[in-house]
Amino acid sequence: MTIGVVCGGVGAARFLRALAGVWPAERTVGVVNTGDDTVMHGLAISPDLDTITYTLAEAIDPERGWGLRDESWRAMEALARYAAVRPVGSSAAPTWFNLGDRDLATHFYRTARLAEGATLTAATAEICRAWGLAQRLLPMSDERVSTIVSLADEGIEVSFQEYFVQRRHSVPVDGVRFDGAGSAHLTDASRSALADSEAVVVAPSNPLVSIGPIRALAGVDDVLAARRDTVVAISPIVGGAALKGPADRMLEELGHEASVVGVARLYAPIAATLVIDPVDAHLASQVEAAGMRALVVPSVMNDPAVAHELARRTLAAAGIVVSG
Amino acid sequence: MTIGVVCGGVGAARFLRALAGVWPAERTVGVVNTGDDTVMHGLAISPDLDTITYTLAEAIDPERGWGLRDESWRAMEALARYAAVRPVGSSAAPTWFNLGDRDLATHFYRTARLAEGATLTAATAEICRAWGLAQRLLPMSDERVSTIVSLADEGIEVSFQEYFVQRRHSVPVDGVRFDGAGSAHLTDASRSALADSEAVVVAPSNPLVSIGPIRALAGVDDVLAARRDTVVAISPIVGGAALKGPADRMLEELGHEASVVGVARLYAPIAATLVIDPVDAHLASQVEAAGMRALVVPSVMNDPAVAHELARRTLAAAGIVVSG
Repeated sequence: MTIGVVCGGVGAARFLRALAGVWPAERTVGVVNTGDDTVMHGLAISPDLDTITYTLAEAIDPERGWGLRDESWRAMEALARYAAVRPVGSSAAPTWFNLGDRDLATHFYRTARLAEGATLTAATAEICRAWGLAQRLLPMSDERVSTIVSLADEGIEVSFQEYFVQRRHSVPVDGVRFDGAGSAHLTDASRSALADSEAVVVAPSNPLVSIGPIRALAGVDDVLAARRDTVVAISPIVGGAALKGPADRMLEELGHEASVVGVARLYAPIAATLVIDPVDAHLASQVEAAGMRALVVPSVMNDPAVAHELARRTLAAAGIVVSG
Repeated sequence: MTIGVVCGGVGAARFLRALAGVWPAERTVGVVNTGDDTVMHGLAISPDLDTITYTLAEAIDPERGWGLRDESWRAMEALARYAAVRPVGSSAAPTWFNLGDRDLATHFYRTARLAEGATLTAATAEICRAWGLAQRLLPMSDERVSTIVSLADEGIEVSFQEYFVQRRHSVPVDGVRFDGAGSAHLTDASRSALADSEAVVVAPSNPLVSIGPIRALAGVDDVLAARRDTVVAISPIVGGAALKGPADRMLEELGHEASVVGVARLYAPIAATLVIDPVDAHLASQVEAAGMRALVVPSVMNDPAVAHELARRTLAAAGIVVSG
């Protein structure tokens, strides 16, 4: 009997950490977005998988919210020398994408395992074991899916990291697509986590670019829709704003409402319940009108007690009653 | 009017540094062995090119003789966690091949440029520019050549780095071959450096595994033989021992004499003169009997004045008289 969690990065990581307080970690399975994955310097980088892994290992840098604590940046500093000689048209030596020295080992290992023919699923399981995680983390697919963002002002398409990191997600967007999602497959393990778990939680991640790539895979929405009574989503929008990242602006720019109501409209086909924060309690009836039951629970996970209660009540909404 | 230098790693680097004291660096071209090149963690690594580059930039670690001074090893330290979970049969997370944090930037840049379609020649020129080198360094080929070593005791073939670094070149060898050398091409730039330079110096590098891969490329021996009067080799064997590395044992194990005479027999077809150290002066007549003129010059480059005089007299032996 497992709980499946549909995951982006930071919000999902924090929810999984809280969930471990109310549900056995060894019976928790995260299905994780890989649309943000990229190759830098020839290294295979999976930002959401790593953020969750490092968070659950209590190794994440708490200030930055990504990467390892006690990190150094010597390789990045040394890269500046090469950025200065890079020819026009080359994107070698990208100094805008910071990779810490200790963090590099994770990308080294993943890259080497993939080159040996291991699946990303297998490499991820090994990385989780290296960090002593009891949870199982699954990439949504072993095939490449790339989130591509259309920039309204520049009139060009860029990779997710070029939008999110290089442009600090501060520019307007007029489209998102998931390159490769049409031919990539949800892994069998991920399908089972979504179909066969006792409950599924959609973590408080960006609905469009974190949960969106997972839903773009054939079968995901069908699997979740078929069991939507035991699927609970947690709104990443609180009081009309994203707790982290550009979800609020992106929702508006792409024609959605930047509110729990907008989130409810996106998730109604796949989840029966939306967890919303008390600041949004006045929107509960609109959430219900959008087709989801509204469960009002404090959902800003800055306080461990709040996070614990959020996890407990989220499970309860899926019919799983845990003590504590 | 250039001087071409046929190069392995450390010995060649030291000779090139000395040469800069007697001959303009901007008219010096190194043709460098890439048979040691390898891929680790997905990164393209060119040990001999980097050793020369860092040495000429005065950035080499003087104690180790390889890698950068003021280096740190945080990425390598972090890799141990993954070596511990690597499945049987996997060679991911090779902790025996040390890559310093600052040094990684060089491999990042090279890897990214090759992935973009740049030649190794182009990437190397950019790396040299990044370090402010006036010399031109050329990989012998833009195609992959891999030095493969047969281990006598284990009865297996391994890559050069598995022999040299992983086994600390402390095991007997019963064969060396250069995988890919039959189809790889000497680059046009390297051919020109060997054919058109005013003089060519074969640096004091391992004749079998440093100079050997270069000579294994079609045309190299022919080009040098056609001008052998202006080709001078410097013996890497002094008093029957290699100054660095396993050249002495390897010569014996592979049926050669571990002496300046053994070196002369290898180089006689391509060079008219062999520079030997005074400790080997008693072997001069045997060198001559092997078909090379013996030039007795102190050739242990631990002292800058000795290195300077070695460079000056080496050029003189090729007919180039420089002052100082």
